Amino acid sequence: MKLHILGCYAATPRTLTNPTSQVLEIKGHLFLIDCGEGTQVQLRKNKIKFSRINHIFISHLHGDHFFGLPGLISTFRLLGRDKEMHIYGPNGIKEAITLLLKLGNSWTNYLLIFHELSSKETELIYEDDKVSVETIPLNHRIYTNGFLFKEKLGERKLNIEIVEKYKVDTSSYQNIKSGKDIILDNGQVIANSELTFDPPKPKTYAFCSDTAYMPEIVPQIKGSDVLYHESTFLDSEEHLSAKTKHATAKEAAAIAKAAEVGTLILGHYSTRYKSIELFKEEAQTIFDNVELADDGKVFEF
Amino acid sequence: MKLHILGCYAATPRTLTNPTSQVLEIKGHLFLIDCGEGTQVQLRKNKIKFSRINHIFISHLHGDHFFGLPGLISTFRLLGRDKEMHIYGPNGIKEAITLLLKLGNSWTNYLLIFHELSSKETELIYEDDKVSVETIPLNHRIYTNGFLFKEKLGERKLNIEIVEKYKVDTSSYQNIKSGKDIILDNGQVIANSELTFDPPKPKTYAFCSDTAYMPEIVPQIKGSDVLYHESTFLDSEEHLSAKTKHATAKEAAAIAKAAEVGTLILGHYSTRYKSIELFKEEAQTIFDNVELADDGKVFEF
Repeated sequence: MKLHILGCYAATPRTLTNPTSQVLEIKGHLFLIDCGEGTQVQLRKNKIKFSRINHIFISHLHGDHFFGLPGLISTFRLLGRDKEMHIYGPNGIKEAITLLLKLGNSWTNYLLIFHELSSKETELIYEDDKVSVETIPLNHRIYTNGFLFKEKLGERKLNIEIVEKYKVDTSSYQNIKSGKDIILDNGQVIANSELTFDPPKPKTYAFCSDTAYMPEIVPQIKGSDVLYHESTFLDSEEHLSAKTKHATAKEAAAIAKAAEVGTLILGHYSTRYKSIELFKEEAQTIFDNVELADDGKVFEF
Repeated sequence: MKLHILGCYAATPRTLTNPTSQVLEIKGHLFLIDCGEGTQVQLRKNKIKFSRINHIFISHLHGDHFFGLPGLISTFRLLGRDKEMHIYGPNGIKEAITLLLKLGNSWTNYLLIFHELSSKETELIYEDDKVSVETIPLNHRIYTNGFLFKEKLGERKLNIEIVEKYKVDTSSYQNIKSGKDIILDNGQVIANSELTFDPPKPKTYAFCSDTAYMPEIVPQIKGSDVLYHESTFLDSEEHLSAKTKHATAKEAAAIAKAAEVGTLILGHYSTRYKSIELFKEEAQTIFDNVELADDGKVFEF
């Protein structure tokens, strides 16, 4: 699992920072999460292949998470895309994109499939045999979801040495990988546990931006390997945090601690602060394993 | 008159080029012309004061001329703007911006005044005592206007030496600057032509992007000091030019020649070409005084 941070700063333009967007590489997918203005240029800068993105998840319809989407959709057309594209986001996202395409008379030549969200309860919005995605309902000024990306338990891994010792035919490999025992020609039963290793532990990534402090999400994200949680403000601006329904570094850390996650990644920093290191310092007074997102940074876990 | 090129490349994202946007400084105004994605960052990079922009002109509603506008409008709010903002653009621009603000529940705290355009004839869309702006109806795939910015003839300049020689009271200066003669106490009439110099010749800037070759605009832009005319393609791609309703470098030069403009500035280059110098070379086979727009370039005239 690999996380590319394309942008992780709160709104207001600066020459060197970008609004929220990230790409999660997971089980062969490239999931684009949020799409602030300039995301298409950030994709280029970070050398991410446009054609490998088939699913875009939008947390909410504030500009710094969403205003890069119309341009990206147009660019996919210019690049000759013909594969369908799935877009998951709040109710209204279809109307907005459709109106902009209509005004430009710039219809896509690929299928654009909108999955509009409006529930305040967790929903399973994507699933295949390797991965699932659920919404994490958040508490922001407008309807907002985080997203929980979960790998599924993979196949068991063949212990080739043992399998070859028993001269098992390759046609049985798939059965073994799916957990079955083997009966040899002489009637001897070889237990699956002897023939295989456990599959790697499936990983989980929780993306939570933007939201006020919301302990209600803890049970859902419990034990996640990685939690990206916004921390727009430091303690000194706690009053602004409450007013604008954002979180402080310490509040993000409190969520990470209660949810016993592996790593907390902070982001969505207000541009008022001179150094983002301050966010790490404050968060680490509560939770140890803190990383700072920054534009262009890549996390592997 | 000063022209800041913020972006001048056709769509499709590259890491180092920006879609169309420019700022014209004229008689104390900063007019923003077109607003492709990333314009707000380009404004910052080019150190242009956001608060001095009060009028935005949008030629047409293709993304590479318009998708930076929603973010810019949001940013004006974040920066605490309270002055009204005038936006001139095709019918539908108000609906698009209003929908995006509504979805984000992000209303401006300043007055946003839309001047929607739909006429296929030239219209006077802005005028004060120093400058006027007319539309230049163009021929593109969707409804598109260029804009003609005209300075008005200013006041006559006092010839201070002569004025002081005749001991003219300062209370008469304004009358003299507006062209009146003076009668001295002894009854002697001093002609205005002796007391003043001619005002500087008013300048004219014609912005034409995007459009197919359209000689019909020549009478309107005749004698302009500066013509910015798109030239998306070189001669070798003339077939694409016709198909997409864009112009070649030579077509832009033919317009400049017929209109007898002072300087032709080329821009809106397709990103397929390795060097934009080729545009200048081809244009100069027809018209001498050719300049190449480039992101971050400033022209003074």
